[in-house]
Amino acid sequence: MSLSPGQTLRRLRERKPLVHQITNYVVMNETANATLALGALPVMAHAREEVEEMVGLAGALVLNIGTLSPHWIDAMLLAGKAANARDVPVVLDPVGAGATRYRTDTARRILDEVKVTVLRGNQGEVATLVGVDAEVRGVESIEVGGDAADLARAAARSLSLVASVTGPVDHVSDGDRVLAIANGHELLAAVTGTGCMSSTITGCFLTAKPVPPLEAAVEALATFGVAAEDAAVVAKAPGSFHVALYDALAALDPETLDGRARIS
Amino acid sequence: MSLSPGQTLRRLRERKPLVHQITNYVVMNETANATLALGALPVMAHAREEVEEMVGLAGALVLNIGTLSPHWIDAMLLAGKAANARDVPVVLDPVGAGATRYRTDTARRILDEVKVTVLRGNQGEVATLVGVDAEVRGVESIEVGGDAADLARAAARSLSLVASVTGPVDHVSDGDRVLAIANGHELLAAVTGTGCMSSTITGCFLTAKPVPPLEAAVEALATFGVAAEDAAVVAKAPGSFHVALYDALAALDPETLDGRARIS
Amino acid sequence: MSLSPGQTLRRLRERKPLVHQITNYVVMNETANATLALGALPVMAHAREEVEEMVGLAGALVLNIGTLSPHWIDAMLLAGKAANARDVPVVLDPVGAGATRYRTDTARRILDEVKVTVLRGNQGEVATLVGVDAEVRGVESIEVGGDAADLARAAARSLSLVASVTGPVDHVSDGDRVLAIANGHELLAAVTGTGCMSSTITGCFLTAKPVPPLEAAVEALATFGVAAEDAAVVAKAPGSFHVALYDALAALDPETLDGRARIS
Repeated sequence: MSLSPGQTLRRLRERKPLVHQITNYVVMNETANATLALGALPVMAHAREEVEEMVGLAGALVLNIGTLSPHWIDAMLLAGKAANARDVPVVLDPVGAGATRYRTDTARRILDEVKVTVLRGNQGEVATLVGVDAEVRGVESIEVGGDAADLARAAARSLSLVASVTGPVDHVSDGDRVLAIANGHELLAAVTGTGCMSSTITGCFLTAKPVPPLEAAVEALATFGVAAEDAAVVAKAPGSFHVALYDALAALDPETLDGRARIS
Repeated sequence: MSLSPGQTLRRLRERKPLVHQITNYVVMNETANATLALGALPVMAHAREEVEEMVGLAGALVLNIGTLSPHWIDAMLLAGKAANARDVPVVLDPVGAGATRYRTDTARRILDEVKVTVLRGNQGEVATLVGVDAEVRGVESIEVGGDAADLARAAARSLSLVASVTGPVDHVSDGDRVLAIANGHELLAAVTGTGCMSSTITGCFLTAKPVPPLEAAVEALATFGVAAEDAAVVAKAPGSFHVALYDALAALDPETLDGRARIS
Repeated sequence: MSLSPGQTLRRLRERKPLVHQITNYVVMNETANATLALGALPVMAHAREEVEEMVGLAGALVLNIGTLSPHWIDAMLLAGKAANARDVPVVLDPVGAGATRYRTDTARRILDEVKVTVLRGNQGEVATLVGVDAEVRGVESIEVGGDAADLARAAARSLSLVASVTGPVDHVSDGDRVLAIANGHELLAAVTGTGCMSSTITGCFLTAKPVPPLEAAVEALATFGVAAEDAAVVAKAPGSFHVALYDALAALDPETLDGRARIS
């Protein structure tokens, strides 16, 4: 395995892939702007009438269940199946799985009916989906204890995908290997939607074939984490940190990125 | 009555209550970030399939009719009744009541079917709901003249709740007492969703039992107003003021807050 | 023809017109804040139950198809027809026309059933609607080559409206005259929703009768472009540019605006 977030980012910026996102109302603007700042093109489209056609134009599909309703679930399933048929990689962000049965059931249903490439969630959400009891309070990440590396491996194995479990240290596994990413900053927890952004950026990195999904997911989190570190240099509070995060994503230097990634 | 916004804020930050918000598309990100910056946890969920379960996890429910449609009204009623059954306090923000019959009727229907703890609106909206003629232009607050203190008391009495009428000076009443809060800044009117934020922060403060609703509503507005004053020190225009408002909410010092609240 | 964006802006700020927007989830907060920063009042309302009443209160209606679904299309058609019946000018932003059949068909249907005053889109979208082959990748503007001035004139003639085609240089035509606006900044392409903002600001300017639609559309783009130039003086990256754009809109000086507009 050779990891080079800088090389993948450079490729992504050259190609400017379209990343189709069916996501929640709270963060749509934020994940669209993160996509643009990184160097890819976002498109949000949720109508059953168009999602299959739209995903055919895209390099990746991101499904995020942060604000659900029945029509949106239908659209996610349609889009996911169309993505599978066309070998478009799929990221699932199971926002709030464990908080309500509706969210847990929906995340499980998507995992059953769609081949998900990368599951990106916090510890509580991922634990819920592998059947481990976890405290989930709404949709914001809280520490749940336990061994996140073991959780990532167990989720990857039982769900047959790459599991990307974010937290103070992130853990990504394909069921065999587990990689830890120690980039990031605590101010990420003070801004809503930063978890959703990490899922979107994972989607962006998945478009950069031939990077395999495990590597792409790891590189995405390291890249986002480095941007957060840069943002925290110039901003010490949540509002200005949020703004600085887009600036930092746009300013990321592929030449120095590999040296700053803390992956083990 | 003893008012201490600082003490209530300190308690809130220790407990990190979940605040369930069924609100409009325009401000979801903004009220979620205001909730986080203050020190509580936001969750947005509007599906009829999950709102009753979600509100059972929450310390308060905020209903905001800023962008309505029939399914959302159903969800607000379901969530409101579930909140009542569990003694979870409910804030109603009747955005645009008076502008269209649909908004006026919906606000009235929620007030009829749900026991609302605090009604937080501008003068035009609250006047509409107590049957006083008022000029309402869309959803942004405009000055309507008249005596806001009398309006707050009349609304509290006729609707049997705490009425929180915001404007250049805010007035909050339980039908008996009326308190005026003179904190805030005129730049709040240049950013959309600041009224919605004040409703959300009222919801946050309502979680801090045993503070009674009148006191919680007053403390919330004083706290938000002090944050706006702090933001206006560093930012003189709407975009940067908006950013500084989150920074200021996060930086609020419970030790000095009581001395800065201008409540009479 | 006499163009004076400064005079129109001054009139708009005095009148504070209500601008009814049925727009996409991604940019609602952004276009509402741009409306407020410019000096008008935004209202977002999409329920079939209220759009006809709401548009009757408004000085202009902006329809934006960025995130579609069937109920929203119904609401756009209802609102558009009500606007026509009341001589309220209508702006259509055909976001993503050409990307999917659903978007192309919906934009065409609105153009068929509603008398649109100004069509504001990028080259790919407008080319699609006049039957010219164009590359459209999702919803972000990309360069498509060809002569934008000819495209604007052809669109205006075939669709019988004012066509406002934005890009590095904007072109606006009533089918006879074509005006080019060279204001703006490349950072606009790094922030999602800036095209939508230009449609909203076009709607704001259309309220300032007796300025005719061609002139209003040109003045709106020049004004927005000057604000972008001002924002780019203080901000060099997308997050901070986005914030500075609202500050710049609010700070626009009607006295100096005419001299800064680069219209030919």
